[in-house]
Amino acid sequence: MQPQDFQTVLEKVFPFWNKLSSAEQAAFCRHTVSAVYQKGQNIHGGSGNCTGGIVVKTGCLRAYLLSDEGKEVTLYRLYPGDICMLSASCVLKAITFDVFVDAEEDSECLIISGKTFAELSEQNLLVENFALQTAVSRFSDVMWVMQQIMFMSLDKRLAVFLNDEMAKTGEPVIRLTQEQIARYMGSAREAVSRMLKYFAAEGIVEQSRGGIKILDKQKLRALTV
Amino acid sequence: MQPQDFQTVLEKVFPFWNKLSSAEQAAFCRHTVSAVYQKGQNIHGGSGNCTGGIVVKTGCLRAYLLSDEGKEVTLYRLYPGDICMLSASCVLKAITFDVFVDAEEDSECLIISGKTFAELSEQNLLVENFALQTAVSRFSDVMWVMQQIMFMSLDKRLAVFLNDEMAKTGEPVIRLTQEQIARYMGSAREAVSRMLKYFAAEGIVEQSRGGIKILDKQKLRALTV
Repeated sequence: MQPQDFQTVLEKVFPFWNKLSSAEQAAFCRHTVSAVYQKGQNIHGGSGNCTGGIVVKTGCLRAYLLSDEGKEVTLYRLYPGDICMLSASCVLKAITFDVFVDAEEDSECLIISGKTFAELSEQNLLVENFALQTAVSRFSDVMWVMQQIMFMSLDKRLAVFLNDEMAKTGEPVIRLTQEQIARYMGSAREAVSRMLKYFAAEGIVEQSRGGIKILDKQKLRALTV
Repeated sequence: MQPQDFQTVLEKVFPFWNKLSSAEQAAFCRHTVSAVYQKGQNIHGGSGNCTGGIVVKTGCLRAYLLSDEGKEVTLYRLYPGDICMLSASCVLKAITFDVFVDAEEDSECLIISGKTFAELSEQNLLVENFALQTAVSRFSDVMWVMQQIMFMSLDKRLAVFLNDEMAKTGEPVIRLTQEQIARYMGSAREAVSRMLKYFAAEGIVEQSRGGIKILDKQKLRALTV
């Protein structure tokens, strides 16, 4: 990809693109690189580095918290056209935590240099405003996750998770191990395993080596309410 | 309090006060009211209303999540000079969740009308950026709480809580019931009760009707690491 191709992507991501000076537009393009990540590859996190703004062109990224003991909590996913700013802590001084970002599918991204983003955001309030807006939207996502974790009983949470996965793939079979489901939900594998057994006994799901098959969508949906 | 007195408070809270036009300054002062809350009184939350920006003059406020079942999680506390913007969802469109705010001590506050704040923030990027900055700082606080809840074992969390309370009051006796501690920590009372019994058996604390007395500060601190 050439810098002039970056412009096509960036002007879609940045609602304020036309209000930038041509020098500012050029600086953004010059300090952007394109990158390809394979499914499962780590893109950001752990090192304390300011990776920069990550723009998703194709594929899907997952942002999560990771504890010292290796426990994960998924915070949100990023789809084509989305930009991740929590990976640019040098732009947002008020962000004092670090998230991890992995490619959940093979993904093509643009990485906008954190340093350049920070410089332009100091010069131009519109740039800073955009970075803050983006972070605040993620705040809302994270609060939703927090409420799920804190307040929902596990049966409801598991039902919501399975239902969402089914909606995402359009298939009644969820090709994830109990281990993976537990990790995505931020729960213990044992607890998820026990609940899946309960769901199976209720005729809601059927477990096999390939994953979890939803047998009774209505019953599952009833649990999510 | 008179509008001219509000100015003295607002110019300390808003770092951009001198960059506002006098019309903007006057609008802020005109649409601010002073309010006195008693310890335990609810200030914001539940109704979906946009209360506005809450500036703490004296006392202490507590922001928390509340589930349908009445379970609470403390997100952060606000001290004199702090401003709460999450109570002004009409200013921050990207905020789609609601927090509750209570007076934790007898408190004097200024309430800046949400409607006026929203109007000024549409007119002036500095105002909007301040509101966003404030929200993003709270995001960092909330992520810290989330990591505590998700990743820390209860013994560590309880030790951190008791240690913080002791540091706050400067006294070795924590005058809270098990019920209150559990609520502040977002845990079940039974779990906190069990852990306190364990701490007592270890000679770390002594439980009485008046509260919890820390007997062994070093042992307690060792648990927080």
